[in-house]
Amino acid sequence: MGPHPAVAAIRLAVRRVLHDVLNHHCAQDRREPPLVLVACSGGADSMALASALAFEAPKLGVRAGGITIDHGLQEGSDLRAAEVALRMRALRLDPVEAVAVTVGREGGPEAAARDARYAALDAAAERLGADAVLLGHTRDDQAETVLLGLARGSGTRSLSGMAATSGHDGRYRRPFLDVDRQTARKACLIQSLPVWDDPHNTDPAYTRSRLRHEGLPALEKALGKGVVEALARTAQLSRDDADALDAWAAAAEGTVLDDTGSLDVAALFALPPAVRRRVLRRAVIGAGSPAGSLFARHIEEVDRLITAWRGQGAINLPGRVGVRRQGGRLVIRQG
Amino acid sequence: MGPHPAVAAIRLAVRRVLHDVLNHHCAQDRREPPLVLVACSGGADSMALASALAFEAPKLGVRAGGITIDHGLQEGSDLRAAEVALRMRALRLDPVEAVAVTVGREGGPEAAARDARYAALDAAAERLGADAVLLGHTRDDQAETVLLGLARGSGTRSLSGMAATSGHDGRYRRPFLDVDRQTARKACLIQSLPVWDDPHNTDPAYTRSRLRHEGLPALEKALGKGVVEALARTAQLSRDDADALDAWAAAAEGTVLDDTGSLDVAALFALPPAVRRRVLRRAVIGAGSPAGSLFARHIEEVDRLITAWRGQGAINLPGRVGVRRQGGRLVIRQG
Repeated sequence: MGPHPAVAAIRLAVRRVLHDVLNHHCAQDRREPPLVLVACSGGADSMALASALAFEAPKLGVRAGGITIDHGLQEGSDLRAAEVALRMRALRLDPVEAVAVTVGREGGPEAAARDARYAALDAAAERLGADAVLLGHTRDDQAETVLLGLARGSGTRSLSGMAATSGHDGRYRRPFLDVDRQTARKACLIQSLPVWDDPHNTDPAYTRSRLRHEGLPALEKALGKGVVEALARTAQLSRDDADALDAWAAAAEGTVLDDTGSLDVAALFALPPAVRRRVLRRAVIGAGSPAGSLFARHIEEVDRLITAWRGQGAINLPGRVGVRRQGGRLVIRQG
Repeated sequence: MGPHPAVAAIRLAVRRVLHDVLNHHCAQDRREPPLVLVACSGGADSMALASALAFEAPKLGVRAGGITIDHGLQEGSDLRAAEVALRMRALRLDPVEAVAVTVGREGGPEAAARDARYAALDAAAERLGADAVLLGHTRDDQAETVLLGLARGSGTRSLSGMAATSGHDGRYRRPFLDVDRQTARKACLIQSLPVWDDPHNTDPAYTRSRLRHEGLPALEKALGKGVVEALARTAQLSRDDADALDAWAAAAEGTVLDDTGSLDVAALFALPPAVRRRVLRRAVIGAGSPAGSLFARHIEEVDRLITAWRGQGAINLPGRVGVRRQGGRLVIRQG
């Protein structure tokens, strides 16, 4: 008799990623066996991930370790982290580390915690020479991320959610993006793994928590049960679409840009609006405008120098970048 | 003193569209003044639209008329339609018609009513020689449409909502896609226009009604007040992106398709996945597969003949279309 379907599902998801990590490792012709770490909070998703990694890695000759981050945001978080480390060692993961970080304030509490966490994971991966770090994000997390992107209203890229592979050299892997939260939880239950429910996950002060406990259930009630799956599929399709359009814009930039860094208006006008705006965005960022301060309305204003030209003056953009039309060309300058 | 801001907003929105309709009319060198109809249910959105059309059209030398559709789905709907026609005549719209339709069952109650309505509007526009038919869809309707598309999970095109211009020769115009429902309602109140609230709009048996009264408010509570605006912006950006990718796929099809109707695998492989899948979809529909029965999973299976070739057999698709790989080519045949 095979394992419970939930356990089989999480193991299959991890096995697929390990095969891919092995292929990359071998292609690099490295002697020692690969090391894969799991980032584990002690919650159901990442405990399920840790258990599947511990089960699958030895069969493939992969070393498996774990990292837990102590964000230092709650009383006793250091004890909690030590306990999660013990649980990972009990799964026979090795090396296992609990790493304490200091969370700043930039970008709000969620973003600051996230930044600190990834910096610590990056450092641990480097220090231990890990080939990959597995993250426990599930299909439900992906659906929430798509809705958060939707709320920004900034288009296809912002709907593309989390990548299955990301970070330096594709270090971060998310094996559970097609696995739902319920399956991860069930797999922990079946394997008698103790899990810890992060109180942040149910704290209505956090946007993601409100989305999880109120927004998504209401949307499911209105639209039917397939919403989470539809959102996850939207993420994948949007990512592919955004990649293709970015590639087009990169290629088009070469054909409209001259040696002086100015752009040909007629050639820009001939491009589809979606590509033209991406070319303009690239050019403006290339001239020194910080991507994070550059909004759709900025690019639309620049676009009107092409599509609705009536002699308007220079457009001033974040990062002291100015764009003006000079005859048949757009001149983009910082200064 | 000018009109109330809500009234000014709806008039400006209609004026912009009328200017555009006039430009098209003159370009066609037609003698008689243009005729623009409003499709009016008697609800706040379309009554506001009718009032703005009645106010703006005479100033631009445009004839303005109105159509109301009696769907025959409720007791007394014929009387209701006659009353809406009277209200339009009171606004000095001329010609005004109440048209009775028979709603079928295909595709569910909402789709069937919609099909019958557009068929009747098309026929009325032809009969009266109208240049355009204005529809009262607001930014809130657009947001709901994007969420309905999101629930399908079928990608960028399904997120693009309703077009500002659509139908035969761009007949249908939606001047209020940037106007919110509250503004339309306010404009009716200010102008003392009686409005009729369609009970379907609050009937929880309808998906759109559940979305309006439960789904969207919950999403706004979780994500903040800007959600409707973000969704409407997503529609516009998604439409532009989908148009650009469709154009790329149409151009790419020419480079991968040979005289026998088979496709070059190596050339397909070199395309970005988002473009390749669109080329495959076009080719399969071109071979006779009905677009409405062709889902993403079908195209993914065909795509694996290119990206994950391991000698698999022919893929059978809706409409008796088969795709098989023969050496370096994909052969697509109906039969």
